[in-house]
Amino acid sequence: MAAPISPHTQIFAPLKNDLILRAAKGQKTERVPVWVMRQAGRYLPEYREAKGNTKFFATCKDPELVCELTLQPIRRFNLDAAIIFSDILVIPVALGLTVANDPGEGPVYADPISTPEDVKRLNTNFDIVSELGYVYEAITLTRVKLEGKVPLFGFTGAPWTLMKFMIENVSAGPNPNKARKFLVEHPEASHELLGILKDAVVRHLVHQIKAGAQIVQVFDSFAGELGPNLFSKFELPILRQIAREVKEQLKEMAIDPVPMVVFAKDAHFAIEDLAQSGYEVVGLDWCVQPLHARKLSGNHVTLQGNLDPVMLYATKDEIKKAVKDMLNKFGTQHYIANLGHGVLKDVDPDHLGVFVDAVHTYSEDINAVS
Amino acid sequence: MAAPISPHTQIFAPLKNDLILRAAKGQKTERVPVWVMRQAGRYLPEYREAKGNTKFFATCKDPELVCELTLQPIRRFNLDAAIIFSDILVIPVALGLTVANDPGEGPVYADPISTPEDVKRLNTNFDIVSELGYVYEAITLTRVKLEGKVPLFGFTGAPWTLMKFMIENVSAGPNPNKARKFLVEHPEASHELLGILKDAVVRHLVHQIKAGAQIVQVFDSFAGELGPNLFSKFELPILRQIAREVKEQLKEMAIDPVPMVVFAKDAHFAIEDLAQSGYEVVGLDWCVQPLHARKLSGNHVTLQGNLDPVMLYATKDEIKKAVKDMLNKFGTQHYIANLGHGVLKDVDPDHLGVFVDAVHTYSEDINAVS
Repeated sequence: MAAPISPHTQIFAPLKNDLILRAAKGQKTERVPVWVMRQAGRYLPEYREAKGNTKFFATCKDPELVCELTLQPIRRFNLDAAIIFSDILVIPVALGLTVANDPGEGPVYADPISTPEDVKRLNTNFDIVSELGYVYEAITLTRVKLEGKVPLFGFTGAPWTLMKFMIENVSAGPNPNKARKFLVEHPEASHELLGILKDAVVRHLVHQIKAGAQIVQVFDSFAGELGPNLFSKFELPILRQIAREVKEQLKEMAIDPVPMVVFAKDAHFAIEDLAQSGYEVVGLDWCVQPLHARKLSGNHVTLQGNLDPVMLYATKDEIKKAVKDMLNKFGTQHYIANLGHGVLKDVDPDHLGVFVDAVHTYSEDINAVS
Repeated sequence: MAAPISPHTQIFAPLKNDLILRAAKGQKTERVPVWVMRQAGRYLPEYREAKGNTKFFATCKDPELVCELTLQPIRRFNLDAAIIFSDILVIPVALGLTVANDPGEGPVYADPISTPEDVKRLNTNFDIVSELGYVYEAITLTRVKLEGKVPLFGFTGAPWTLMKFMIENVSAGPNPNKARKFLVEHPEASHELLGILKDAVVRHLVHQIKAGAQIVQVFDSFAGELGPNLFSKFELPILRQIAREVKEQLKEMAIDPVPMVVFAKDAHFAIEDLAQSGYEVVGLDWCVQPLHARKLSGNHVTLQGNLDPVMLYATKDEIKKAVKDMLNKFGTQHYIANLGHGVLKDVDPDHLGVFVDAVHTYSEDINAVS
């Protein structure tokens, strides 16, 4: 492992396209910025070629390869942000879980969390730069190679989502109530585990920002299944703490704050709370109606989302129509366009290009009229 | 197969507990009626004993065994309804799909739907009494053996949920975008398939009612993943047609109408529409906040739900507290208590008993005060 990098002292190229940062801060934008979740990935032939047979976790640990995978969609599409290629599951590994194998899209743990005692064996005092330095190296390298073309996103899984993976080994096949059962049967151990994960998530985000990430997203991919009661009790306070503590730690380190995005998939019941939880942007899945989200979230937050990912299987004309409808409903300000979940692996890349370009074209049209 | 039974001409025992029927019709009830989804099942030792090694589908086809499994929870708990033990997947089999094997909780098809051409090979002119007579026999038998203790529910899967199973073979492992992709890529074939399923569902419901079912539920277990756009286009019109056509066909046959319940899991975006779609009752999953649902659905519909099923893993005191909270929010009228999804297989039956009794006790308390 190379020596720790402190790139916040480096001088990166000036940013040529700050649309997404302005939108996140609620500043006026001349067109709607757009990026997509799971932007780098298997739907791109160049991804499959560059990755070859390298296993998923080995890929995440190779900064040169990560940089290449991150830049591929930026070369191909007119996107307004890059997002570092990585995985939400790097944190549990840093905490001491062992990756048993590498099937499908993500790792499976040899030693998942089953009991409150398992929480005690986590290595909470891990050296984050030793354990996750490969992420920060990749971010710095990518930031350099981006040459200011667009901002670079860092990201993390949210504590509840990480807890769910650590208990259920989601990649190995779903058991959608095991982690929820743990919350109800072991509330104290759950609070302890979520607190451990929260600390790790905060440190991971701060180090990504220090390494050069200009905006960060917290993926709470399984927020929805908590329902309003468990979400309020176990996850919302933790999400608030993450936003607050990241900002505090950056301040102490004299690093400029960056916009933070929370994407709590399927947590339709929590939109009001999320809009007041300290994040500049609230991401929405495709099941939330834009007008409903605007009404609930108020004007103090930027919304991000939310075209149904399966719409990229539709014809190009239908994609354009759907984008138009989405922009008409969200409006063009306080808004970052995205899919409502990750791009699917067998989508035609040209269809993603139509989506990206349609966001730009139609939002410029709307802005020109208004 | 025995000769068709026409039990609507039979005289069943008078109903001793009509709470759930009155609640469904919006009539005043002195206590809140309660039943639970997946009421008969593996959480009961007597179920595991009675079923033994009989395979799942063979169990569904054995009216005596179905009757026994349906009555078991009624003997053990103070429930206000029985629900016939069956499966939503009997309809695709009647349409010609072949059950390949019987793993886990349900069958897997040897010949799932993959292309629009596959829709053409469905046997739409099946004789429903030959194909599904075992369900109707079981209903009549159970209705007799219930001796009027509580009403008997019939049920069906909704067309979209059946379509998803037929395409994705859900029991074999999830592929949560394959059926959605089919909708977007093959809209015409999708409408055709959903229409075929709608016709089968209507016939199946009418025959269940004719056989003795006193209330019926349509399970749209995967409604939520459609999101508002695909749901409005492909499923909502079909759900409306089912309610209308069942009532029309019953009228033509001079059979009294029965209350109809629609449970569209995770379709939080559709509560207003569902409340006006011709069903007397709208079921809610655990992610919907009761007050929100009341506001959206208005006063003309009865709500059913929605305790988080994992709450049955909590202590008995916590279960009682959660029931109290739920009743305070829903109120005691226009309301049928239930879990927000099926009872989980490793729940302590005593905890389910606490839930059922708490609904009765607290709702009587509230009614006594008000």
